Amino acid sequence: MTVLAQQAVLDAHYMARALELARRGHYTTHPNPRVGCVIVRDGQIVGEGWHIRAGEPHAEVHALRAAGELARGATAYVTLEPCSHHGRTPPCADALVNAGVARVVAAMQDPNPEVAGRGLQRLAQAGIATDSGVLEGEARLLNQGFLKRMEHGLPFVRVKLAMSLDGRTAMESGESQWITGPAARSAVQRLRAQASVVLTGADTVLADNARLTVRADELGLDAEQTALVMSRPPLRVLVDGRLRVPLDAPFFKAGPALVATCMAVEEQYANGPECMIVAGDDGQVDLRRLLMELAARGVNEVLVEAGPRLAGAFSRQGLVDEFQIFIAGKFLGSSARPLLDWPLAHMKDAPELKITEIRAVGDDWRVIAVPIPPASV
Amino acid sequence: MTVLAQQAVLDAHYMARALELARRGHYTTHPNPRVGCVIVRDGQIVGEGWHIRAGEPHAEVHALRAAGELARGATAYVTLEPCSHHGRTPPCADALVNAGVARVVAAMQDPNPEVAGRGLQRLAQAGIATDSGVLEGEARLLNQGFLKRMEHGLPFVRVKLAMSLDGRTAMESGESQWITGPAARSAVQRLRAQASVVLTGADTVLADNARLTVRADELGLDAEQTALVMSRPPLRVLVDGRLRVPLDAPFFKAGPALVATCMAVEEQYANGPECMIVAGDDGQVDLRRLLMELAARGVNEVLVEAGPRLAGAFSRQGLVDEFQIFIAGKFLGSSARPLLDWPLAHMKDAPELKITEIRAVGDDWRVIAVPIPPASV
Repeated sequence: MTVLAQQAVLDAHYMARALELARRGHYTTHPNPRVGCVIVRDGQIVGEGWHIRAGEPHAEVHALRAAGELARGATAYVTLEPCSHHGRTPPCADALVNAGVARVVAAMQDPNPEVAGRGLQRLAQAGIATDSGVLEGEARLLNQGFLKRMEHGLPFVRVKLAMSLDGRTAMESGESQWITGPAARSAVQRLRAQASVVLTGADTVLADNARLTVRADELGLDAEQTALVMSRPPLRVLVDGRLRVPLDAPFFKAGPALVATCMAVEEQYANGPECMIVAGDDGQVDLRRLLMELAARGVNEVLVEAGPRLAGAFSRQGLVDEFQIFIAGKFLGSSARPLLDWPLAHMKDAPELKITEIRAVGDDWRVIAVPIPPASV
Repeated sequence: MTVLAQQAVLDAHYMARALELARRGHYTTHPNPRVGCVIVRDGQIVGEGWHIRAGEPHAEVHALRAAGELARGATAYVTLEPCSHHGRTPPCADALVNAGVARVVAAMQDPNPEVAGRGLQRLAQAGIATDSGVLEGEARLLNQGFLKRMEHGLPFVRVKLAMSLDGRTAMESGESQWITGPAARSAVQRLRAQASVVLTGADTVLADNARLTVRADELGLDAEQTALVMSRPPLRVLVDGRLRVPLDAPFFKAGPALVATCMAVEEQYANGPECMIVAGDDGQVDLRRLLMELAARGVNEVLVEAGPRLAGAFSRQGLVDEFQIFIAGKFLGSSARPLLDWPLAHMKDAPELKITEIRAVGDDWRVIAVPIPPASV
């Protein structure tokens, strides 16, 4: 193997470790991205760090602190280009320069317009060797929400659905109950926990008394992770174009929430939850506009847990990045409610999806499917 | 390890090989069971055989021929108790006695009332050591159809369905086309090939001009297996209570078929396909009675490839042993046709299934699900 090829293998090795560290921030970094950092000197890892929570030190700072004087002349592996701007913490590029590292390898450039190459530039200007693009695919997967927001001004939208094997979600009468088992429910709790926003509609809140909270005892995480998760629960957003949900609904009693509506906020809501007025037709909130508003507030990932109407509306409007469909081993029958309200007349209009994963979750199964944009079919 | 434990490990090892050989008859043995045989002497395999086609020699005979004189004093491993009766071939128990084997190990007793322990008894009477029950679970899986017929007088019924991710099979208008890709279609061809009967209904034959034949070039098998398969295609059975399908339908032109109907056979059918009159209500064939008739004719496995009405009827009546559902990565929408015509009012009536396998088949996925009888839920 050539020296260059050896270097590439080692770079990938240490970057994989940095990605592993970054994942520890899975539930907590937003609105910031998940970032990990490893400092390597003479083939030894001398410092590791990851970003835990917005407002707290970045991954590089943790790793540099751990390395101390050993950072001098070392190589730093970071899963995202070090920042060059003063946010709530000082720029990491400066910290790396000050610590005297000799080389910085980033998995990818930071698409944040406040950074966007300037972090690596700052390092290069200080005489530090820089590389970018090591395990970039993995690094992008880690921060799908942050990247979507930075690149498109929209959050990453994940729609969670639970259905029977024949594609139904509830009986015709509306009768419904957990159709999936405890392992699937626990997986849904973790999906909520990793999201910046859990979003639902008036139908679901009215019909099921849904609260959509994160419950510590159902997360299935260890004590440390559970504590981190519970320290920053996702914002619960209710789409209620006509303000149908009364303020004494369990949803509102379960903690802070944001209501997206088309109505001028009525008096009864004066002392209630925060309201966001999003114009729309026919008393229906304009969902794209709502998502843009949420992104502007720093929301990276939205988990939609709603009935066929609202989930169907997100789907029809092409706003969904990923479906997570939990399938229970039962048939609810041909008169039961559909997965999504989405009437289609012709086969040629049927949207295509790429099923990327199917995996057993307890007695149920989880399908992950990604819409294929019509242009690329 | 004790000598006994060692023997058990060796027995399982050779039986596994015998099962592997038995699987070579996957497409061709019916109405007979699939059977494999290995003859072992002094730790060496000296003969192997498997049953290929009804009317031809049984597995034991092939293996004994291969072993020749070396069979004397050897152990024979058979996946099913050797037969003791004169069928189209002489009893295998006698052949084993005559060859002078010292020990016979069977995976399971033959439930065929003409054998049912008498094969092993015959061997024991001749002074041969016998064992039964080695890898019995695997041996039973190999012959689900044969066992169902012997034990319950009914064939094993497998229902094949193809649906979108939202559980739909065709548009509301009836517009339909292959929704799954070539790998799934090839898998369906192999399901047809392994069945004794491929069964469909008038709706499918009328709407789709379905022929339900096995096509050599779509099987995805090697030349030898393909030739074996094509030498005994499954019987195609049309359920047509009111004789709605005209004799010039492509279905009838594609080869021999059996029509199950409630009607006295009309004149037009006089020179047409064989008809079986099965009484039923409202011009609907009594499906359980039809299955019993087919079992009486030696049918082990039935593949149902039908529309929501007929597949739904089999399901509602508890006649299905296994669903194989091919799932395509698309949504057909909420007005599209259901998987099964099976209206249910209450959650408590929703039938439970055990999903035993989900696997990628090309770009599609295949779910295998087994109904759980209501009593055991």
